[in-house]
Amino acid sequence: MAGPPRAVAEVRRAVRDGLRADDRPVLAACSGGADSVALAAALAFEARHAGARVGGVTVDHGLQPGSAGRAEGTAAVLRQLGLDPVLVLTARVGDDGGPEGAARTARYAALATAAREHGARVALGHTLDDQAETVLLGLGRGSGPRSVAGMVPGRDADGVGWWRPFLGVRRVTTRQACADQGLPVWDDPWNADPAYTRVRLRTEALPLLEEVLGGGVAPALARTAELLREDLDALDALAAAELARLAAGSGDGGLPARPLGALPAALRRRVLRGWLRGAGVPDLQAVHLRAVETLVTRWRGQGVVDLPGGAGVVRASGTLVLLPPEHRRGTPGPAPHEELTP
Amino acid sequence: MAGPPRAVAEVRRAVRDGLRADDRPVLAACSGGADSVALAAALAFEARHAGARVGGVTVDHGLQPGSAGRAEGTAAVLRQLGLDPVLVLTARVGDDGGPEGAARTARYAALATAAREHGARVALGHTLDDQAETVLLGLGRGSGPRSVAGMVPGRDADGVGWWRPFLGVRRVTTRQACADQGLPVWDDPWNADPAYTRVRLRTEALPLLEEVLGGGVAPALARTAELLREDLDALDALAAAELARLAAGSGDGGLPARPLGALPAALRRRVLRGWLRGAGVPDLQAVHLRAVETLVTRWRGQGVVDLPGGAGVVRASGTLVLLPPEHRRGTPGPAPHEELTP
Repeated sequence: MAGPPRAVAEVRRAVRDGLRADDRPVLAACSGGADSVALAAALAFEARHAGARVGGVTVDHGLQPGSAGRAEGTAAVLRQLGLDPVLVLTARVGDDGGPEGAARTARYAALATAAREHGARVALGHTLDDQAETVLLGLGRGSGPRSVAGMVPGRDADGVGWWRPFLGVRRVTTRQACADQGLPVWDDPWNADPAYTRVRLRTEALPLLEEVLGGGVAPALARTAELLREDLDALDALAAAELARLAAGSGDGGLPARPLGALPAALRRRVLRGWLRGAGVPDLQAVHLRAVETLVTRWRGQGVVDLPGGAGVVRASGTLVLLPPEHRRGTPGPAPHEELTP
Repeated sequence: MAGPPRAVAEVRRAVRDGLRADDRPVLAACSGGADSVALAAALAFEARHAGARVGGVTVDHGLQPGSAGRAEGTAAVLRQLGLDPVLVLTARVGDDGGPEGAARTARYAALATAAREHGARVALGHTLDDQAETVLLGLGRGSGPRSVAGMVPGRDADGVGWWRPFLGVRRVTTRQACADQGLPVWDDPWNADPAYTRVRLRTEALPLLEEVLGGGVAPALARTAELLREDLDALDALAAAELARLAAGSGDGGLPARPLGALPAALRRRVLRGWLRGAGVPDLQAVHLRAVETLVTRWRGQGVVDLPGGAGVVRASGTLVLLPPEHRRGTPGPAPHEELTP
C-alpha cells in the first residue's frame, strides 16, 4: 500500500508527537490560507489515530468586504475535515500598532478567550518561512538577541497554550499538502500587498538574500533562531536561579552588591531586571538597568537611582535596596545634588 | 577656535580611549581605502596627544597588476601622516577558501608576524557597515549564534592584539573624514565587483533591507551583534567556571553525569565542548556533542560514543570518562552491539 504523498506525510509528522505530548484538546487556528488549512487537515488526521480532541477556529476581522462569508467558508472546510467544535469568532480590531499589528492583537485576544473557554491549546500554522521573516524583522528592530530568536514552538501564557508545530516546515510544503488532498485554499490579498513590511520581506528581501548568499537562507535563519533561543533560555534560567540565591541570602528583599559585581554583565543585568520586575517596577528599559548597574560596577557613594513609576534603588551597607514610590520621602541621600524632590 | 569637522572629530574620538588603554605600540593596518586611511590619520593625530607609538603597515597581496606600486603609495601616505615605522609586507596568497578567503588568510598571517616582531597591537579599519555585512553573512551560514555576533572590537590571540576601534563608525563618516583632511583614498576595484558575496550584500541586499524595514538596519545589526556577544561571552564564562568546578570535584579528568544533567542544555553542551577540546579531541561538531550528551540526558546503559580522531566517551559509575585513541582496546562495553571493532 502506498503511503500519503511526501508533503502530506511531512505535515502530519510535524504535528504527531506534539499532539500526543499534551492532554488538552487542541483548537486549530485557521485563516483559510494554505498553512493553516494544511495544519487543520494534519491535526484532524492524526487526532483520529491518537484519540485526541481537535477543534477548529477561524476569526472574522471584519476588515474586508465579505469577510463574514469568508469565515463561514473556512468553518465549512474545518467541519468537513471532521474537526469539532468549529468556532467562528469576531475580532474587534482597534487602531493601535498599524493595520497589521491591530488585526494581530485582536486575533490573538479572540483566540485566547476561546482557548480558555474550552480549556484548549491553540495550534498556529506559522511555517519556517514565517520564522525567517520574523527573525529578519527582529534584526531590523535591533532591540537585542531575544528579538532575533523568533517565535517559540510552544509556550503557555496567561492560561493559554500556544503551539506552532510547523516552524520546521516550508511554506511550499503546506501548499503542496493542500493540493495533494484537494483542499481549497484562500489567498488573502493582504499577503501580496507590498504596503506591508512582512510582504516585502517575503517577496523581495528574502529572495534577494537567497540569491546573494547562495540559497538556504530561510532554514539558516530558522536554525540560528532555535540555537539562539536555547542560549537565551539558559541565561534566563541561570539568572532566575542566581536571583533566588542572592535574594535568599540577603533577606529584606535586597540584593548584595559584591556577588552581583562578580557576575558576567549579561547575567547581572538579567538578575537586576528579574529583581525589579518581581518587585513591580513597570516599563523597565535598558537605560534603567544600566543606571542601577553602576551602583555595583562603578560604586563611588552615589545616591538614589530613579526608576519608572517613582521607585528608586539605593546602595546601603553593601546591599541594593528598592525604595517603593510611597517610601521615597526621607530616603537617605548621600550626595546632596541627588536629594529627592517632593 | 573652531574644532575639526564633525567626521574628523568622530573618527578621532573613536580611537582615543582605546589608544590610551593599552601600553603596546599600535600598527595601523592600511589598504589605502577610506576606512583604513581615516583610521591611520586619526591614530596619528591622537598618538601625538597621548604620547603613544603608532606605526603603519600595508600588505601587497601581489594579486593585481601594479599592486607593489599601490602598496608603496599607501606607505607614502602613512609616512606623511607621521606614522613610524611604516612597513610594506608581502603576503603569500594560497588557494584555500576562494579568492576573498585566501587573500584574507594571507593578510592576517602577514599582519600577525609583523605585530609579533614589533610587540604591537594591530588596528583594523572595519566599520559599522562591515559589521552589519558580517552579521548578515553569519545569518546566511546558519551555523549558530556566535556567527551572528560579528567581529569583536578587541581580542588577543596567539600573542597578537587585534583592535577594531571603528565598529561604531559608519563607512560614510570615514570617507568624509578623508575628504575633510585632503587625504588620498584608493577604491579597490574588488570592493565593487559583484562576483563577491560581500559586495552584493553591501550594494544590493542591505540597501533593499534598509528600504523595506524603514532604515536603520546597519546600526540595528551592529547593536544586536554587540548585545549578543555579551550574552554569548557570559554563557562561555559560566560554562568554563562550571567545567572547572565539575572537573575539580571528579578527579581523574572525568565529569560527573548527574550535575551535568541538571544544567540548561546550552550550558551543558558548552561544558562538554570545553572538556573535550581541553583533552585535545579535534574537529568537534554539534553532532558529536549531542551524541555525548545522550550519555547524560538519555542514559540507558549504552556503550562508547565515538569521537573524531579515534577517541571515545563512556559513562562508568556515573562519570563521563574520555578514552584516548591509544586506550580504546579493552574498553568496558556494556552493550554487546556497541563492542569496539579493532
